[in-house]
Amino acid sequence: MGGDHGPKVTVPAAQIFLRAHPEARALLVGREELVRPFWLRMTEAARERSEIVHAEEVVAMDESPTLALKNKKKSSMRFALNLVKEERAAASVSAGNTGALMAMSRFVLKMLPGIDRPAICPVMPTRTGHVYMLDLGANVDCGAEHLLQFGVMGAMLASALDHKERPRVGLLNIGEEETKGNEVVKEAADLLRASGLNFIGNVEGDGIYAGQADVVVCDGFVGNVALKTSEGLARMLADALKQEFTRNPLTRVMGLVAWPVLRRFKARFDPRQYNGASLLGLKGLSVKSHGSADPAAFAYALARAYDAAGNDVVARISRKFSEARLVFRRPELNSEGDS
Amino acid sequence: MGGDHGPKVTVPAAQIFLRAHPEARALLVGREELVRPFWLRMTEAARERSEIVHAEEVVAMDESPTLALKNKKKSSMRFALNLVKEERAAASVSAGNTGALMAMSRFVLKMLPGIDRPAICPVMPTRTGHVYMLDLGANVDCGAEHLLQFGVMGAMLASALDHKERPRVGLLNIGEEETKGNEVVKEAADLLRASGLNFIGNVEGDGIYAGQADVVVCDGFVGNVALKTSEGLARMLADALKQEFTRNPLTRVMGLVAWPVLRRFKARFDPRQYNGASLLGLKGLSVKSHGSADPAAFAYALARAYDAAGNDVVARISRKFSEARLVFRRPELNSEGDS
Repeated sequence: MGGDHGPKVTVPAAQIFLRAHPEARALLVGREELVRPFWLRMTEAARERSEIVHAEEVVAMDESPTLALKNKKKSSMRFALNLVKEERAAASVSAGNTGALMAMSRFVLKMLPGIDRPAICPVMPTRTGHVYMLDLGANVDCGAEHLLQFGVMGAMLASALDHKERPRVGLLNIGEEETKGNEVVKEAADLLRASGLNFIGNVEGDGIYAGQADVVVCDGFVGNVALKTSEGLARMLADALKQEFTRNPLTRVMGLVAWPVLRRFKARFDPRQYNGASLLGLKGLSVKSHGSADPAAFAYALARAYDAAGNDVVARISRKFSEARLVFRRPELNSEGDS
Repeated sequence: MGGDHGPKVTVPAAQIFLRAHPEARALLVGREELVRPFWLRMTEAARERSEIVHAEEVVAMDESPTLALKNKKKSSMRFALNLVKEERAAASVSAGNTGALMAMSRFVLKMLPGIDRPAICPVMPTRTGHVYMLDLGANVDCGAEHLLQFGVMGAMLASALDHKERPRVGLLNIGEEETKGNEVVKEAADLLRASGLNFIGNVEGDGIYAGQADVVVCDGFVGNVALKTSEGLARMLADALKQEFTRNPLTRVMGLVAWPVLRRFKARFDPRQYNGASLLGLKGLSVKSHGSADPAAFAYALARAYDAAGNDVVARISRKFSEARLVFRRPELNSEGDS
């Protein structure tokens, strides 16, 4: 039970989640003496559908992924993933150290055949709904084949969760014309066009929020920059708006009058409802929550994992990759697969 | 006189600019019969400090840069750059086709010795002021040396325009730790650390708007994605805020009451005041305005060019690159320089 706040957040989140999903059960993995006090404060109904799984170690937020993988075999993160591997849990959700979660998820759950690297896939708001964007941070220096694999995984996720038969897959680029972009992106466009996916071509940065695609594919470097830049801009604008409304007593009154509208605006883009990024390409479900999530945000991540499990996301991705003719892979990449 | 609107925008912009800069003069380059009617509507004072330079051809907004370079030798874009080369003008400002402007600027003005590629450097708002970010679109597939060159050019621009002796230069990356990022970025960090610049290390996407650096260095692909993603997000949020305030008669009243605050907020981030991206690395000043700029926005781009000319931006960059020991370049790159 990691993240910035530990069981103080994750256990109340489980309660919110269990109340909203009457068929669900929760396994609360962590140090029993830390988890139990919060568990005891849950409603009886929630306690009946949850149990504590004791794990004595904790992966620190700043711990090296390699060391965590090697030394933290009794950590809550590792135990939670083991539960998924042993099919005692349908999915694992963690607010802990991203790098360690990536490494452990890959080590414990293993890659699906045909997929080289796991991708982190969050969901983001758009003008018309939402978009799945991948990869967001795990893979830098991607080849064209990796971008193709991201496209396939993202499309399977979107079709599973949003029940869209042919989700629109776009490739993040710096122009809509086919001649634009770097070499990897141009090659990836060729592979995506030949993939059988509903590939709509290049999407520019502003197209992400315009809702041009259901899935936007990019390498982990570009994706991370796009996401963090967006977070930084949104925070700057939100703070500036607040500043203007708290400038003096008169502006405060104006803010009070406008509050119902401002609150509605705020709720519409509340980042908590977009919490929970899926780690795709693995043989089991692993979902990453923001480290700083509050109970409501973490409950959204739990709900997202529950939804993915209920809609067979892993099986869908696996099936798609076993349709061998669909995905073109270079021989030299195969050696790296399923490790 | 290109851009989406032509002299209808650029001539009134010149009038705004001339009024604000009593020492300045403007050469209005374009088809005389199209420019003159707008010129005649300027104040007498503005007409006295401006003249029309006839150029019969126009580079279309969707024209191929290569073809424009080859065929449009009598275009307003080409003529304006010729005026800079011949030192009849201190800077050229264009709202036209970006690719063609890059190609023509490079061909007409030539690169400064020691610089491989021109970079597009806009200025963007931050929590604490503003930041220069480069490259924004011209260079994909950059090497580490190019990123170093961008750092040097950006620092010279920031020190010239903002009179900061040691502007803080950051490298856009996906983590603040030195071990993060792709190979090119890691190598660029080493070069920047050894450069003598005030290099503050890695800056993440959210650090751009947090004002962590005065100059943020990145390759053209990542920079373009960051900028366009920001534009898309800002537009989505602005439209949603408007939507919420125009939802019904009651919310409209709330909007009217809050209008003084909302207007102030809007003015604070008005993108027009950030119009005008400098093309750096050339032997003369070439500034790119948004194609869709209105007169106020285009006047900001004119003012930015005027400011850069008055503060010897080109000479500063040139001097810095001639301090040979400062900038480490690989031999194989030299062949490409100053072409």
